[in-house]
Amino acid sequence: MASRNGDDRSIEERLHRIEDRLEIYNLIAGHPPSADTAASDYTASIYTEDGTFDRGAEFPAPTGPAAIAAVSASPEHHRAIEEGIAHFAGLPYVRVTGDTAFAISYIQILVPDRVGPVFEVPNHGASQGFHVHRVGANRWDFVRTADGWRIKRRQVRSLDGSEGAREILRGTFAPAAE
Amino acid sequence: MASRNGDDRSIEERLHRIEDRLEIYNLIAGHPPSADTAASDYTASIYTEDGTFDRGAEFPAPTGPAAIAAVSASPEHHRAIEEGIAHFAGLPYVRVTGDTAFAISYIQILVPDRVGPVFEVPNHGASQGFHVHRVGANRWDFVRTADGWRIKRRQVRSLDGSEGAREILRGTFAPAAE
Amino acid sequence: MASRNGDDRSIEERLHRIEDRLEIYNLIAGHPPSADTAASDYTASIYTEDGTFDRGAEFPAPTGPAAIAAVSASPEHHRAIEEGIAHFAGLPYVRVTGDTAFAISYIQILVPDRVGPVFEVPNHGASQGFHVHRVGANRWDFVRTADGWRIKRRQVRSLDGSEGAREILRGTFAPAAE
Repeated sequence: MASRNGDDRSIEERLHRIEDRLEIYNLIAGHPPSADTAASDYTASIYTEDGTFDRGAEFPAPTGPAAIAAVSASPEHHRAIEEGIAHFAGLPYVRVTGDTAFAISYIQILVPDRVGPVFEVPNHGASQGFHVHRVGANRWDFVRTADGWRIKRRQVRSLDGSEGAREILRGTFAPAAE
Repeated sequence: MASRNGDDRSIEERLHRIEDRLEIYNLIAGHPPSADTAASDYTASIYTEDGTFDRGAEFPAPTGPAAIAAVSASPEHHRAIEEGIAHFAGLPYVRVTGDTAFAISYIQILVPDRVGPVFEVPNHGASQGFHVHRVGANRWDFVRTADGWRIKRRQVRSLDGSEGAREILRGTFAPAAE
Repeated sequence: MASRNGDDRSIEERLHRIEDRLEIYNLIAGHPPSADTAASDYTASIYTEDGTFDRGAEFPAPTGPAAIAAVSASPEHHRAIEEGIAHFAGLPYVRVTGDTAFAISYIQILVPDRVGPVFEVPNHGASQGFHVHRVGANRWDFVRTADGWRIKRRQVRSLDGSEGAREILRGTFAPAAE
């Protein structure tokens, strides 16, 4: 059947591409819950064996599922969870190309504010609110495996005016490889 | 036609599953506009007759479309709207299983800050900015009805370091039922 | 093949509608990276020739790709980028109707806070954090062109308690045209 938009992919190929895209949305959406509950087994399960997690020069850069999962299994990370850390993911830009894909996304890291004034909002209780601790630009590189999509590389850079975050964000506009 | 990924679902079934997923994205995306405009008729229309909305022990827990819609029709809620309340939804994790589905999502509730300093941002005006009043973890349980997907239960817990929010977030990693 | 949900659209039509929706998600997701890197060529490429960008009475309202792209190419905007401005997009509500579509979405504009106290978060470094400068309600009107979906009109209004934002948000609940 000819496609209305003139491409020559089969129904099967188009359907599969869409399923890929939705699977990747869920991989990105699963990250905040995994970080905020220290779900290390899950984290280990979504990286490739040679997967990398690069948060910039001021943090260690673990390689491989076990080392990456260990980041959120540390006592330090558990303390952040007890304080109420929340990772908050925005709408990602996602491009699938055959058996690889990438996404560019923003993330906020928030913590309860324990020093500011209490705000009372009608019908929504009273709270000192939350402090937006970091805003990061992420680049995710994915590969298809026999078990589904996996993360081969995740990079995060803080949006603090430095060049690293902008370099990641510009990936959105890279020419299509196909 | 055999599927490239080896599952034995028909094209129709796969297409339908994708449409389900996108319909659920819109149900979640419609929540902030409904809360921020007190769109009670809309809110009543998206819950099942036995639907529940559970915001935790410190808030009432209405059951049924009329009672749930009444929450955002109250004078209290209208005052929050006049103050400029904004609900802000992150990317949800969504899993559809036949005629049921669930989603785990984050939400921020923001209000204009009327006590802090004025910030001036080049090309973006001056503002006292916004206060992040609450950050919540949501669990949405959906059921398919003859009229489309409806919410059977929505739970929200504040990400303030307490266990309730983490319990919701862990739902993301529950084993697949199928 | 009869559709399980009783509509009489062909597989091709349904598939195409889904692809439209996902293309529009990427158009919305591409906006923050373009604003935060001043990607003017990209911005110019996604508006129709008669496209408009309306940020409310207090800002100029450019028409056409070149004028719209010029907003983020200005020295003022570049200063905002050097300060670390971040646009952060929530999950949009998207409705496709044949060759037109619209979306209602929320956006936050954040800047690094250079006046508040330093917060230290275990495993997540120290930071003065970010100031949520604006929260806006967006309405995007899209049209299908021979080159893909393009923006015909984007409107943004600040969620500061004024009526403009609520009017945009109510668009989510407009009766379906088809």
